[in-house]
Order: sequence, then C-alpha cells, then structure tokens
Amino acid sequence: MTVQAALTQADTGLDASLSRLFDLLRIPSISTQPEHAPDCRKAAEWLVDTLKEIGFEASVRETPGHPMVVGHAKGPEGAPHVLFYGHYDVQPVDPLDLWHSAPFEPVMVKGPTGDMEITARGAADDKGQVMTFLEACRALKAADGTLPLSVTVLIEGEEESGGVNLLPFLEANRDELKADVALICDTGMLARGMPAITTMLRGMVGEEVTITCANRDLHSGMYGNAARNPIQLLCDILSDLRDGATGRVTLPGFYEGVPVIPEETRALWRKIGPTDQEGLAPVGLSLPAGEIGYTALEQTWCRPSCEINGISGGYEEKGFKTVLPSKAMAKVSFRLVGDQDPEKIRAAFRAHVQARLPADCSAEFVPHGGSRASIVSANMPFLPPALTALEAEWQHPAAVIGCGGSIPVVTEVQQALGMDSLLIGFGLEDDRVHSPNEKYDLTCFHKGIRSWIRVLYALTGNAPQ
Amino acid sequence: MTVQAALTQADTGLDASLSRLFDLLRIPSISTQPEHAPDCRKAAEWLVDTLKEIGFEASVRETPGHPMVVGHAKGPEGAPHVLFYGHYDVQPVDPLDLWHSAPFEPVMVKGPTGDMEITARGAADDKGQVMTFLEACRALKAADGTLPLSVTVLIEGEEESGGVNLLPFLEANRDELKADVALICDTGMLARGMPAITTMLRGMVGEEVTITCANRDLHSGMYGNAARNPIQLLCDILSDLRDGATGRVTLPGFYEGVPVIPEETRALWRKIGPTDQEGLAPVGLSLPAGEIGYTALEQTWCRPSCEINGISGGYEEKGFKTVLPSKAMAKVSFRLVGDQDPEKIRAAFRAHVQARLPADCSAEFVPHGGSRASIVSANMPFLPPALTALEAEWQHPAAVIGCGGSIPVVTEVQQALGMDSLLIGFGLEDDRVHSPNEKYDLTCFHKGIRSWIRVLYALTGNAPQ
Repeated sequence: MTVQAALTQADTGLDASLSRLFDLLRIPSISTQPEHAPDCRKAAEWLVDTLKEIGFEASVRETPGHPMVVGHAKGPEGAPHVLFYGHYDVQPVDPLDLWHSAPFEPVMVKGPTGDMEITARGAADDKGQVMTFLEACRALKAADGTLPLSVTVLIEGEEESGGVNLLPFLEANRDELKADVALICDTGMLARGMPAITTMLRGMVGEEVTITCANRDLHSGMYGNAARNPIQLLCDILSDLRDGATGRVTLPGFYEGVPVIPEETRALWRKIGPTDQEGLAPVGLSLPAGEIGYTALEQTWCRPSCEINGISGGYEEKGFKTVLPSKAMAKVSFRLVGDQDPEKIRAAFRAHVQARLPADCSAEFVPHGGSRASIVSANMPFLPPALTALEAEWQHPAAVIGCGGSIPVVTEVQQALGMDSLLIGFGLEDDRVHSPNEKYDLTCFHKGIRSWIRVLYALTGNAPQ
Repeated sequence: MTVQAALTQADTGLDASLSRLFDLLRIPSISTQPEHAPDCRKAAEWLVDTLKEIGFEASVRETPGHPMVVGHAKGPEGAPHVLFYGHYDVQPVDPLDLWHSAPFEPVMVKGPTGDMEITARGAADDKGQVMTFLEACRALKAADGTLPLSVTVLIEGEEESGGVNLLPFLEANRDELKADVALICDTGMLARGMPAITTMLRGMVGEEVTITCANRDLHSGMYGNAARNPIQLLCDILSDLRDGATGRVTLPGFYEGVPVIPEETRALWRKIGPTDQEGLAPVGLSLPAGEIGYTALEQTWCRPSCEINGISGGYEEKGFKTVLPSKAMAKVSFRLVGDQDPEKIRAAFRAHVQARLPADCSAEFVPHGGSRASIVSANMPFLPPALTALEAEWQHPAAVIGCGGSIPVVTEVQQALGMDSLLIGFGLEDDRVHSPNEKYDLTCFHKGIRSWIRVLYALTGNAPQ
C-alpha cells in the first residue's frame, strides 16, 4: 500500500524537510510593517520555487498589497480536487528583549515536555503548518510520482494584517481556484497528542481610536484638572465597554446573532476540554475573566469577546514627566460568533466613543479588518474520512472543536467559491503564537506531514459523483 | 540714582545677555534621562563659570544625583541677605517631530503677539528665568561695582525629576545657605504685561504603576475573554479614580486638609483672572474638565488634581496585532493643596489599585516624588516692596496669585532653613512649558532682568532689625 511508502519517505526525509522550513522561517515576512514588504515578496518567491521543485505549476500573483502564491498539481482523472490555504506572513516580534533566540534565526531546543521545539516567529503560525502540507505533497510525489488527488495551493501574505485583498483575489480567480473542498492549515489540536478538526471559528473587527483634547501637550500643573485629559477620557470610554458585574460587552445590539450553545455540546466540552484552571495555569492565571456563567473554553470557542490590544499616550519612558498630553490612542478588537455583523459592531463601537466625547474633543478611527464568524457543517462528506485518517496517525480519536481565533478565509472561500473548508492543524496551546519565543513541536511538524499524507489518501474516496 | 545706571546697563547689554542665555540653552540637561547626566554636569559647570565671571565665589557641589551650583556675593554691611533659587535641568523633548526647530538649538522668532520669542527647551522653564536674575546681578555689578545686598545663589539640577537630593543638601548646608528671604524664579505672570508674585503653590505626588496579568503576551483569539487583559484592568482602575458626575477624586480621605477658598478671594480672581473660555481657548479647548463648581483658574490655583501623565501597553505601533498583553503601565500624578499629605495620598492610591486587582494579577509601584503644597504668608515684610518694584517696571499693578505647578523648594526652604520665599517669575501661559516649541518672550527676558534690578534695590529697605 503506497501510503506506507509515502510515510516512510516523510520519515527518512525529515531532516531535509526541517532545513527547508528553517529557510522559510529566516525570512522576516511581517506583513503589518511596511519596511518588511520586500521580505513578504521574498517569502512568496521562495514558496513558488519550492512548489515548482515539488512539481507544481506555481507563480507569484500580484495584489494591491502583498503578493499571493498559487500552485497547481493535477491528480488522477476523477479524483477529488482540493484547495489548500495557508499564509506566509507573520506577526511583529516585539517585545524583542523577551526572545531567548533571534526571532528569525530558527533554533531547535528541547522543551519542558521533552519534545524538541522549533523556535522562531512563524514556526507555528503559519509557516510550520504550511510546510507540513507541502512536505506531505513532496513525500507523496517521491513515493508515487504523483499526488492521489488534484491539489491547488493558495498561500497569502496578509492574514496577520487585515487580509483585505484575499476576497477580491478569490472572486477574480474563481474558476482557477474552485475545488471540491478547501483544506486550511492554521488551527490547533485539542491538546498534545489529541488531533482535532475545527468546525467553529470566530470572526473579528479591529478598530484603532485616537482621542484629541488640547491642541498641544500641556503642563499638568498649569492645566491639570481644568483641561481635559485624553488618557483619562480614553480610560473612561474603554472601561465602559464591559459591564463590570457581568463581564458582558455593553455596545447596544452586540449580542444580536450570538447563538445559544446546546447543553449537550457544553457537556461534551466539559468532558473533553480543560477546566478553567487547567486552561489558564500554563499562562500563570487561575481566574477566568470575561463573561460570568461561561467556562474559559466556552468563552474562547463560541462567545464573542472585546479586547484592548494596545494603548498609548503621554510620557511612557523612564522617569516622570508632568505632561497633560494632547492625544491618546487605543487598538481594540472584537471576536465575533454566529451571525454577528462586523460592520454593525464597528459602527456601534464608534458611536460608543462619540457619545462619550465632550464637545471640545475629537476622535479619529482607523479600521483594521472585519470578518464574520464561520461554522463548518458537521455533515460535510469530507469530514468523516479526515477524522479517521487523523485518528490512524495519532492513535487517538480526532475531536470536532471550536477555535477562538479568526480565519476569515473560511467565510470568504464559502462566499466567493461556494466551498466548504476542513480546518486541520497541528498547533498546541503552548506554541506562544503571536508572543515571544513562538515554537512548533517537532512531533507536530513530523506527524503533521504524515497526517496530511493519510488525509489526502482518505479524501480520494470522496470523488464527487 | 544708580538703579537707573543698572537699568541702562541691562538695556545696552541685552544682546550679550541673550547670547549667554543661548549658550546655556544649547546644553541638553534633561535630568530624568540617565544618558544626559553628563549634560547636566556641563550645565552646572557653565553656571559656575558664569557666576565667577560676574564676581561670585561659586562652585559645583556634588549630590547623590545631579550636582548643585552654589555661589556667594557679599553686599554692603547691614544689607539684607537673599537666597536665589532656580534649576538648570529641563524636561524631555518628545514628541520631537512637533518641534519647528531643534529643541537645543535656540532661535528667536516673531510670535503671533508680535513679540520676539526665544524658542528652545528650557527657554522659560527655567534657564531663561534663572538668567534674568544672573544678568541683573551682572548689570548691577557693572553699574555699581557691587550688589545692593548679599546674594547667595543655589541652582539645582533635579527639579524636573523628583528632586530628592535638594532637602538633604539644604539641611547639610544650613549655615551656608540661610538668608533673610528666598527669591524663587520659576513661576509666571498673571498675563502678558501683568506682573505677579505667586503666594500659593500646589504640592505633588507622582506614582508609576505596572499591572501584570498573564506571564506572557497571549493571542487575543486563543485567550480573549478568558484571560484577564491588563489594559482593560488598568483602564477600569484609572477610570475609578474620578467620580464621573462630580469630577471629584474618589480616593478615601483625598480632600482632607483641602482649604475652602474664601468667597472674596474667588470674587477677586473672577475679576482679575481669565474666564474658563479665555483660559482654555489658547490650547484649543472650551469646556473646563475636572471638578464641577469651580472655575478652571480655581481648579489649577487652589484645588487638588489627579492626572494620568502616561499610559502604555500591548501593541502601540503602526498596523494591528491581536495580542493580549501580559503587562500595562500608567504614570499618575496628584497636585496637592493646603495640608494634603503626599504619603497618605500615595498610600491611598496604591490601596485603590490593590483593592481592584483579581487574586491572580499583580501590581508594581514606582514612586516619583512627593511634596506638600506651600503658601507664602501675605504679610511677610519683603512682599510689599517687591510688588511696588514690579509695578514700577511694568507700569501695571502687581497681583498676588496662585499657581497650579509644584515648586517643592518653597516647602523645603521653609523646613530646612526656616525661611519664607518670594516667588517672582516672568513666564506666560502660552510659553509651552513641558511641550514642543517651549518659548520665552524677549520682553519677559529683558524686563525680567530690569525687574530683578528694581526688586533687589527695593529689598534693601528691609534689612533685618
């Protein structure tokens, strides 16, 4: 059975696979920082070369932002056609002083669990995950000379920075990108050694607000009390976003379209998922924040959230300065579930701010992306064979779970191409995604490659009638 | 009458006086930033050389922090002895991009009022003011060969950074520094062309608080809602510092020792002072913030305040990062009046924060100075002649006013040397003290020199019996 040949190929080729992953990790493709635009292009070109090497027809495709990577490899007549999606861009690396090794000089170190950890920005999100799929294709080609089904690869470079160019690109290239199912590798496992397919994803709205009071910075002795302090005003406005007693977001209509979680689902999650204490202990916390009456897991999997992602104003350096600043800024994001409408919530947030501004102060807003939540129908034909394939690799039943993160592509693929997605990923809770010392377990990378080999074979049984 | 000779000397020597001031302004003596420590020493040495040139015995005096400058010049037998105080250190210059010229390359430009403006960091606070006194002494020496009274000069380098070393220095050098009255030049006029002596000064307590929640930055998708957000927590804590309806500070006992302003004083101030609109218009505001029931002027002259001087947390740069940070920091200051106790208020603030911390979060505090408010007794013998001298120079009655700023030296001189202070300064509301493009009107500098010549003569009539 050739699946074995491909798996053996993945095992013997692991060192080579790793060195290719390290090459990609060395490219600082931070999409949100304009000075890294050339690095984003470099990552795209690296991926095109890699796809060609494996046997794909591949090219860099321009967009108004960072370029896309598209590749095609034809499988046997009548076999299904899958669209694989991933992203080559990464998050910024600050605070740099908390990294134990340079973010873009990948290293492999033994972690507290005893497993080796591939440490670098993007190791897990999403370069490491993208490479599990490409290396699986490489092993299949090497073992069989071909892939078991037709594969189209789409790798974008703006997932971490709003991704406004993805939907237009999907729509403009509908015929080329349409397939039977999308495979998205940007999610995690239920826990170490416990594979999962994510069927619920939260959407997101990002907003940046800058409050201006006086027309210049003032001396807090000369003007303190008398002139409005934009930091104080911003704190009042942000503090009002949540009800202190219930933890609920106070924006009018915010919970419209938020589905009630079925009791049996909650019961199942309480059985398979970590307790609040288990979930928070790894990050040094013990008390769940947010909404009263929901577990930490429920809050991240299927409840909407409101987070302040950044705040800045006045004198932030060493020492003290008795300044009463002219401006203060905050970055706020909302995670959405069910049918919550990103643009309605953006408008409600802006109205919340405007309603609290004195007549002589002003607010400016910068939008940072907006996407609806997405849910994969649990009865799609590709789901059962994929779950079986994952169980075979990990020797552990594969779970169907939710995810707190936002992966707009799921909604956009549905909207532009009318396709369902399978969200299969090998990340772990402790991967420090978006944080210093981001890592990806060697086991996740290795068994991730092997998992894709099994999944691609398993999906061949689902050729469209 | 030799006062005329000295005044003429001040007029003819103005250009030379200006070029000396510019030399001092070119030294970036920012006391709160450690990398500028050598510049602080340089400023101190420059002042010692200048004092010697004028005819003072002067020297740089070491402290655990930035050095002090002390100089002595003996006057006629039986004449009073004054202690002049000023500071050579300046505030940081950020935000640098808002300066129209380099902060430490002084320029003179025509201002909107038609007067020439000396523009540089420290032009008004306090180098320009210090130089009005030194140049007055220079003119007196040049005209009379001596000073009309004995003068001791004390210029410190930590007024803008907590000034913890001043009190110990005063106590350690009590005999050397004791005089009949202290002359402090770090305050302003009532308005352009309207001289004033400040008899009420607010004290200050500065605190820096850092809140820590998770032990590392988190992904707001994975942990949002479930893990405590330190920025949200900090906003809640800071928002609770003031009562939204009354604008009053909520710390228990905060208003203990705050004196009631006599109705006649309030009436007088309403007569001589600017209206709220007049006072706020220059900075682009129209509505007074802070406490309900007090004018902007009353709030800054004789009511305590609470200001957030800086805040920082999460991702503050361009673009967006869905991070849930581990820490958030704020710098807060309270201006004190009457008998408010700085240390009691510091303790109340820390208790306010601690009381609002969930059990799994922590707060660290850094104290930044603390001083009581000070009031100069209105019946001190040196006050009337000084007021008369100022009126003679400005051809406008000199007012007795309050000041929102904190000048700890007044309390410390009283405490360590048992001396009263006369606060005579020539700053204006629009000097942009602590802000970009700080300036000092040429008229204030010139007539400031002339004012000191008249004041020093006027005080000779008050030799101690």
